[in-house]
Amino acid sequence: MTEIVHMNKLKINISRLNDMLEQLSVIGRDEQGGITRLAGTEADKEARDLVVNWMKEAGLNVFIDRIGNIIGFRNGLENIKPLMVGSHIDTVISGGKFDGSYGVLAGLEIIMTLNDNKIKTKQPIALCVFTNEEGVRYSPDMMGSLVYANGLSVKEALRSINNEGGTLGQELQKIGYAGDARCGLYIPSHYIELHIEQGPILNMERIDVGIVDSLQGILWKEITILGESNHAGTTPINYRKDSGLAAANLILFLRHLCEKVGGGQVATCGKIRFDPNQINVIPGKVIMTVDLRNSDEAKLNEAEQLLDDYLSEVSNVESFNITSKILVRLHPIAFNEFLVSLIEKNAQKLGFTYRKMTSGAGHDAQMMARICPSAMIFVPSVDGISHSPLEYTPSTDIENGANLLLHTVLELANQDSVT
Amino acid sequence: MTEIVHMNKLKINISRLNDMLEQLSVIGRDEQGGITRLAGTEADKEARDLVVNWMKEAGLNVFIDRIGNIIGFRNGLENIKPLMVGSHIDTVISGGKFDGSYGVLAGLEIIMTLNDNKIKTKQPIALCVFTNEEGVRYSPDMMGSLVYANGLSVKEALRSINNEGGTLGQELQKIGYAGDARCGLYIPSHYIELHIEQGPILNMERIDVGIVDSLQGILWKEITILGESNHAGTTPINYRKDSGLAAANLILFLRHLCEKVGGGQVATCGKIRFDPNQINVIPGKVIMTVDLRNSDEAKLNEAEQLLDDYLSEVSNVESFNITSKILVRLHPIAFNEFLVSLIEKNAQKLGFTYRKMTSGAGHDAQMMARICPSAMIFVPSVDGISHSPLEYTPSTDIENGANLLLHTVLELANQDSVT
Repeated sequence: MTEIVHMNKLKINISRLNDMLEQLSVIGRDEQGGITRLAGTEADKEARDLVVNWMKEAGLNVFIDRIGNIIGFRNGLENIKPLMVGSHIDTVISGGKFDGSYGVLAGLEIIMTLNDNKIKTKQPIALCVFTNEEGVRYSPDMMGSLVYANGLSVKEALRSINNEGGTLGQELQKIGYAGDARCGLYIPSHYIELHIEQGPILNMERIDVGIVDSLQGILWKEITILGESNHAGTTPINYRKDSGLAAANLILFLRHLCEKVGGGQVATCGKIRFDPNQINVIPGKVIMTVDLRNSDEAKLNEAEQLLDDYLSEVSNVESFNITSKILVRLHPIAFNEFLVSLIEKNAQKLGFTYRKMTSGAGHDAQMMARICPSAMIFVPSVDGISHSPLEYTPSTDIENGANLLLHTVLELANQDSVT
Repeated sequence: MTEIVHMNKLKINISRLNDMLEQLSVIGRDEQGGITRLAGTEADKEARDLVVNWMKEAGLNVFIDRIGNIIGFRNGLENIKPLMVGSHIDTVISGGKFDGSYGVLAGLEIIMTLNDNKIKTKQPIALCVFTNEEGVRYSPDMMGSLVYANGLSVKEALRSINNEGGTLGQELQKIGYAGDARCGLYIPSHYIELHIEQGPILNMERIDVGIVDSLQGILWKEITILGESNHAGTTPINYRKDSGLAAANLILFLRHLCEKVGGGQVATCGKIRFDPNQINVIPGKVIMTVDLRNSDEAKLNEAEQLLDDYLSEVSNVESFNITSKILVRLHPIAFNEFLVSLIEKNAQKLGFTYRKMTSGAGHDAQMMARICPSAMIFVPSVDGISHSPLEYTPSTDIENGANLLLHTVLELANQDSVT
C-alpha cells in the first residue's frame, strides 16, 4: 500500500529532461536556430553518440541493429517480452528540437527516474531510437521502424540512395552505426510513443495531453488539367478554356468535400504549377497536387470517390482533359484500444485534461502497430508549428507528457498477465 | 467614271503577297517552325535588308530614323502630309509569320498594285516598319512607334539594355540601322494598320474582317496573399488560414467581376506561385498576377475598384494579409471615328462581312493615335492562336484584308480636304 501511494506521486526530473533536450538540440544547429540532423550524416552520428552514452550511464544494455536502430534494454524481474518506448532523433532540414527527440529523451528520463527510485518492473523495458524517421535523404520515411516491423527488407533499405549518390548502408558504416543485431531483435508486448502534436488542436483547445487512438490514412494525387492557352487580352471570357479557373474550382471543391465527408476529413492543394505561367496568357495547363487524409478508411475512400466523380464531371461537362495519378496511398491505423484506455486512466489519475485524437502525421508507432499493440501520447505544439525552428512546447507540457508516459509504463510493466 | 469603275475592281496580287510573306518567314525560322526575329539581332537585320530592297524596287524613297524605324515614301500629286500604313517585322520567341509582317507586306503590296496600275494618289503614301514592337529584348514594347509619336525620347530608347548587357543603340549600329533621319519625320494625315486579330472572335463568328474602333486599357497587378503555412495532415480545416484557398476564391471572383462589369471586360490570373509549394504543406503565401482589360476607361476603373474592394473585404473579414502592386496601367484608346466609318464603307463596298471590335493586344497604331487619326483592320486568326508557330490565317483572309486596306487608302489619299 505504501508503495502504491509512493508510486502515484512519482515524477520525472523535468530539469534533467530539459537539460538533455537542450544538449541534444545543439547538435546540427543552424544559423536560423533550426536543427539539421539528417539520417546518416555526421550530425546524426554525434547525436547518436551522445544518446548512447546517456543510455549506458543509465545502465541500459545497448544494441545496434543492421538498419542502425539503437535499442537500450533494461532488465525486468521476469524474462519476458519487453515493453517498448521510443521515437527518433533525426530531423528535417532546419527542424525543431522536440520532434522525435522528445520521445527518445523522455523515455530515457523515465528510466533514469525508475533508477533514481530503485524501482524494478516485472517486464523489461526497451528504449528504441529508430533510424531515418524523417526520410529527407533516404526513402521511405519511418524506415527504421518499418524494417524493425518486417515491412521492408534490411537489404533494400540499406541500398537507398541519397542525392549525392551514397547508400544508407555506406553512410551507416562511415558513422559507425551499421550494427550487427538482428532487425526486430525484440518483439515488444506493447509500444508507446510520446511526441509533440505538430498540429494546433491541443494548443488551441487548451488541453494538456492528446491520447492518439488512430493515425490518418493518406492519399496523394497529382492532377493535370489541360485547357487552352490563349491571349489574356484578345480572348473573350466565353471563349476561354482556362485551366487556372478549373484548378481554382477544384481547390474550392476540396473544402466542400471536407465538409461533406466530415469526421476530421482534411484535403489540401499544397503544390501548383501554371503553364506557361505568364501574366498575359490564360493558363493552358495546370499541374496540382491533392492531399486527402482521414483516420477512417471508409471515409477516406468516400473522399477519393467524391474527388474522382468531380473530376469526371468537369472532364465531361466542361470538356477539360483531366488526368490524375496516385503518388501515395497509406491505410489509416487504428491504435490499440486497451493501451488507449490505459493511457486515459493514467491521464485522469494525474489530473490532466485530455482528448482522444487522430494523428495527421506519420510516426514510427504506425509501423510498430504491425507487430504489437501500440499507441501514442501527444503534447501541445504552440500554434501547431513543427518542422521549423519555431517549433515550441512549454516545459510544463513536456513534463506532463513524460509523467503520463512514466505512469502508463509503470502500470503496464507490472501487469500480471503479460507473457 | 471609267476610272472609278476600274478602281472599284482593283485588287492586290495575292500570290505576290503570299510569296513575300513566305520569303520573310524563312528569316529566323527555328526547328519548331516558329520565327525568332528579336529586335536588333542579325535575323532582324536580314529581314530589314529584304524589306528595304523590296521597298526600293517598288520605287519608294527609304529613310531610316534614329530609332531604326524604316519609312518608305511614295510621292503624291500634291506636296501634302502623307497617309501612313505600317506595322513591324520583329517577332516574339518562336512566333508566327503573320504578326506584324502582314501589315508591312500588305502595305508594300498595295503600293506595288498602285504601281502596276499606274495609279497616282493626291496624297503621298508612307509605309513604316516600326522598331521593336514586341519588346522581348528591349523595353518598352511598341518602342519605335512610341518614339515616332514623341512619347519617349530617342536617347532614352537607345539606352535600353538587353539581357546580355548591350544597348539597343549599340545593336542598331551593329546591324546598320542606326539611321540619321529625325524621329517623327512625317506627321501623317492618318495612320491605318492591318493586322491579324490574335484572338478567336472573327474566326469563331465566321466574319471576314474586323474594324478596330478601340484598344483595351490594361491593368496588371501582382497580389500577395499571406496566410499560415501548416501541416496538411495535422491542421483541421477550421484551424486553417490557407492562402491557396484564398487565391482560388480570387480567381473565381475575377470571373464574376467580368460578368458584373460586362462590356467585354476580361480578367485573367496567368501566373501563380505557392509558398512553400509542397504537397503536404498548406500554402502560407501565394503570389499571383491579375490582368484586367477593357476598352472603356470607366469600366476598367470600375473593375479595378471591384477588385480592390474584394481584396479589402478578404483582408478584413478573413484576416489574410493581402498586398498588391500595380505593374502596368495603360489607358484605353478610342480610334478615329471617321476612319472607322470609312473602313466600314469600303468593307460594305467590297462585300465583306465585318464587325467593329476592340483590340485586346497592344499595337503601333495606339502610339500613332497620339499624333494623327488612326484605326486598324483585323483579319481572322485560326483558333485565335498567335505568338506561336501555329499562328495561321488562310490566304483568302490575307487577300480580303489587303484589298480592304487598298481601297480605304485609295479613297483616303484622293480626298479633297486633306491639308
